[in-house]
Amino acid sequence: MSEKRQLHLTAFMRPVSLHTGAWRYPGSYPDANFNLKHIKSFIQKLEAAKFDAFFMADHLAVLNMPLEALKRSHTVTSFEPFTLLSALSQVTERIGLAATASTTYDEPYHIARRFASLDHLSEGRAAWNIVTTGNPESSKNFGLDEHVQHADRYKRAREFYDVVTGLWDSFADDAFIRDRESGTYFDPEKLHVLDHKGENLKVKGPLNIARPIQGWPVIVQAGQSDPGRQLAAETAEAVFCSPRDIAAGKALYADIKGRAVAAGRNRDHLKILPAALIIVGDTVQEAKEKRLRVDSFVHYDSAIASLSIALGTDASKFDPDGPLPENLPETNASKTSQEGVIGLARDEGLTVRQLAGRYGGYSGLAFVGTPDSIADELERWLVEEAADGFTVVFPFVPEGLDDVTQRLVPVLQKRGLFRSDYTGSTLREHLGLPRPNNRFFS
Amino acid sequence: MSEKRQLHLTAFMRPVSLHTGAWRYPGSYPDANFNLKHIKSFIQKLEAAKFDAFFMADHLAVLNMPLEALKRSHTVTSFEPFTLLSALSQVTERIGLAATASTTYDEPYHIARRFASLDHLSEGRAAWNIVTTGNPESSKNFGLDEHVQHADRYKRAREFYDVVTGLWDSFADDAFIRDRESGTYFDPEKLHVLDHKGENLKVKGPLNIARPIQGWPVIVQAGQSDPGRQLAAETAEAVFCSPRDIAAGKALYADIKGRAVAAGRNRDHLKILPAALIIVGDTVQEAKEKRLRVDSFVHYDSAIASLSIALGTDASKFDPDGPLPENLPETNASKTSQEGVIGLARDEGLTVRQLAGRYGGYSGLAFVGTPDSIADELERWLVEEAADGFTVVFPFVPEGLDDVTQRLVPVLQKRGLFRSDYTGSTLREHLGLPRPNNRFFS
Repeated sequence: MSEKRQLHLTAFMRPVSLHTGAWRYPGSYPDANFNLKHIKSFIQKLEAAKFDAFFMADHLAVLNMPLEALKRSHTVTSFEPFTLLSALSQVTERIGLAATASTTYDEPYHIARRFASLDHLSEGRAAWNIVTTGNPESSKNFGLDEHVQHADRYKRAREFYDVVTGLWDSFADDAFIRDRESGTYFDPEKLHVLDHKGENLKVKGPLNIARPIQGWPVIVQAGQSDPGRQLAAETAEAVFCSPRDIAAGKALYADIKGRAVAAGRNRDHLKILPAALIIVGDTVQEAKEKRLRVDSFVHYDSAIASLSIALGTDASKFDPDGPLPENLPETNASKTSQEGVIGLARDEGLTVRQLAGRYGGYSGLAFVGTPDSIADELERWLVEEAADGFTVVFPFVPEGLDDVTQRLVPVLQKRGLFRSDYTGSTLREHLGLPRPNNRFFS
Repeated sequence: MSEKRQLHLTAFMRPVSLHTGAWRYPGSYPDANFNLKHIKSFIQKLEAAKFDAFFMADHLAVLNMPLEALKRSHTVTSFEPFTLLSALSQVTERIGLAATASTTYDEPYHIARRFASLDHLSEGRAAWNIVTTGNPESSKNFGLDEHVQHADRYKRAREFYDVVTGLWDSFADDAFIRDRESGTYFDPEKLHVLDHKGENLKVKGPLNIARPIQGWPVIVQAGQSDPGRQLAAETAEAVFCSPRDIAAGKALYADIKGRAVAAGRNRDHLKILPAALIIVGDTVQEAKEKRLRVDSFVHYDSAIASLSIALGTDASKFDPDGPLPENLPETNASKTSQEGVIGLARDEGLTVRQLAGRYGGYSGLAFVGTPDSIADELERWLVEEAADGFTVVFPFVPEGLDDVTQRLVPVLQKRGLFRSDYTGSTLREHLGLPRPNNRFFS
């Protein structure tokens, strides 16, 4: 009997809940994004549940929204990823530590160093989520008036990746001989000076840090645009994405794996991990009620603005507690988006207020049900090749996280879909990824 | 009876020994710069001895020296400061964590964020050593062929400081009200947008992180040039410097404190902490022998090159085991430097080889003797206003560090010159520095 394919699970932890109503949910920690004691307890629970990794997104600005909406957001302040993950490396032993780092407003020498350092400190648990920075507010924090154009950002990102991985290979794995007798600390034959001179970047090297434990930290990519998918196919070992349903997931999965194979890569060396909100109840109905409840904590002002965007029309004039009016005005907004709202209203029988809470809270892919019903769905995504695992989004903390780690994970383990213990010590080993060779030394 | 003035002690820990022969000393850890287990044990010993802070210098390149010398250097690889100090914040409780960060090749938004994050993670123990980057190799790692000019670097540094401290003040200390009932996470009246537009920097803000625990992390400065002293006088709360003897120390102390007073500051809110190598023996003679021994581990090729520079003449033709020849050739090198070598050779009766080891090893200020004789010297520097404390350089580790923490510190404590326990919890409290007001909110 061949072994079942295994799910990989990472936890989306910045913010600790993406749901904008989460901080007001009864029993939640309103300061969870920014209270180390809480974050320590979360990562320790995730490690006890044998999650592959703890994933920190990042923003290089306060989010770009009007102050009246911003003042309601629990995402406005959080720890910086490298400092936080380095701290967490000392209170955990196995779980991977993935940090987002921008190729748009930072320098490859800094990025290469910090990830190499984190990989050494954590004994091989670091991952780099390569992003180009899309928030136009960020450019203003880095001396620019205009945001860097999308195509330029991707060209720079691709070259940035080459430079960072080249810097990680500055020293051979066995360069440091530390021979007291002869007084030779490292073998100079095993040092490579990169001397990169490209279209966007000029970086001499070598990096002033030994080669990372994992050779290279695991490469993660999150783009879904065409250049984003191509960058992922060429470079990523894990892909964070947001398909809206299993059909979209299968298409995306096939597309990115196909591009990877076309680029000469092994399709198993790239794991597709869609983001998914998971809400667990004793019954499907109870889970749905939890979802309605957390949605209800999104302030109506913010919520109705989000619904208006999704509908392409001002929804604030509708009766909040009535159904979505039929015969919505024609708009030049996305027809798909408007149809999505209408379908959701019909399928779940939601009022305008409830729809607003959904769009203002979290409207991406969600699994809402019992541990068994959710396990069924996750297994289906795995078996039908829509995913190699998931980037789990928690609806509220700590309860929503405890529901996943204490109720869902044991079911997945019982079904043989998820590890009952770590079998390796590095993140590459958890994900089943090879250690890259040093391109300059064999 | 008025209380005695107290010494402040910080530990210079990158590299863990500045002495280039240290890694070959018997019983030393050759990989100490890069082995977290060792570094954890060092910081825990320093905390047990109640040191004010653990200080990480930094380099944005492999050191600029020929490969034949470089291959003998234990300083070629080390952890990156932010990642290391963040990790160490979780294995210590009180000791300060000072990181060097360059204003030359980094962005104020990044620097402000990382220090704010470290200050929160460590509950108020962060310090920023503001440096302009002097190593010309660094510019080549950041896209530039030419090193940024000295005067330009200092102008940018001064403005960089204004921006970083302004970003730290983005939120009032009491901005985050997190009122579940009304759904208001923070008071928008307590958010300030910096919108800095200066000669060198344009940064909008606000910072996406709450105001640091200490208001601002402690500001450290290390420059000794005229613009460096002026920057220190205007901004620094601790000054790391390298006077060669007590006379030079007194002059520097008076100059920087005088400039601070002229800039309208309280002279006690700026602590002068000269770097000093400390070597402890049972007798003065034994301590001197330890020094000769560690000097002897500097490879002769490197050592004689350093001596040649100090003399301004090629010393490799001298008899290594004879005395320094009289009638050295005239040179255009610094006369003071040559006279320094001649004086040292005479005072300590050193051979050419021993002199070479000294100049190739560590030739800065050193206190070499018994715990009592060293305590006498440190007290004299304190009483005569040449220092408010010291940045201690260890000759080799762990032995040299243990000698300071276990033998010298108890003598200082017994004399009432150094704390027997921490009385505060933040680094500002250890150093006797006030918490800065928020410039935008009173």
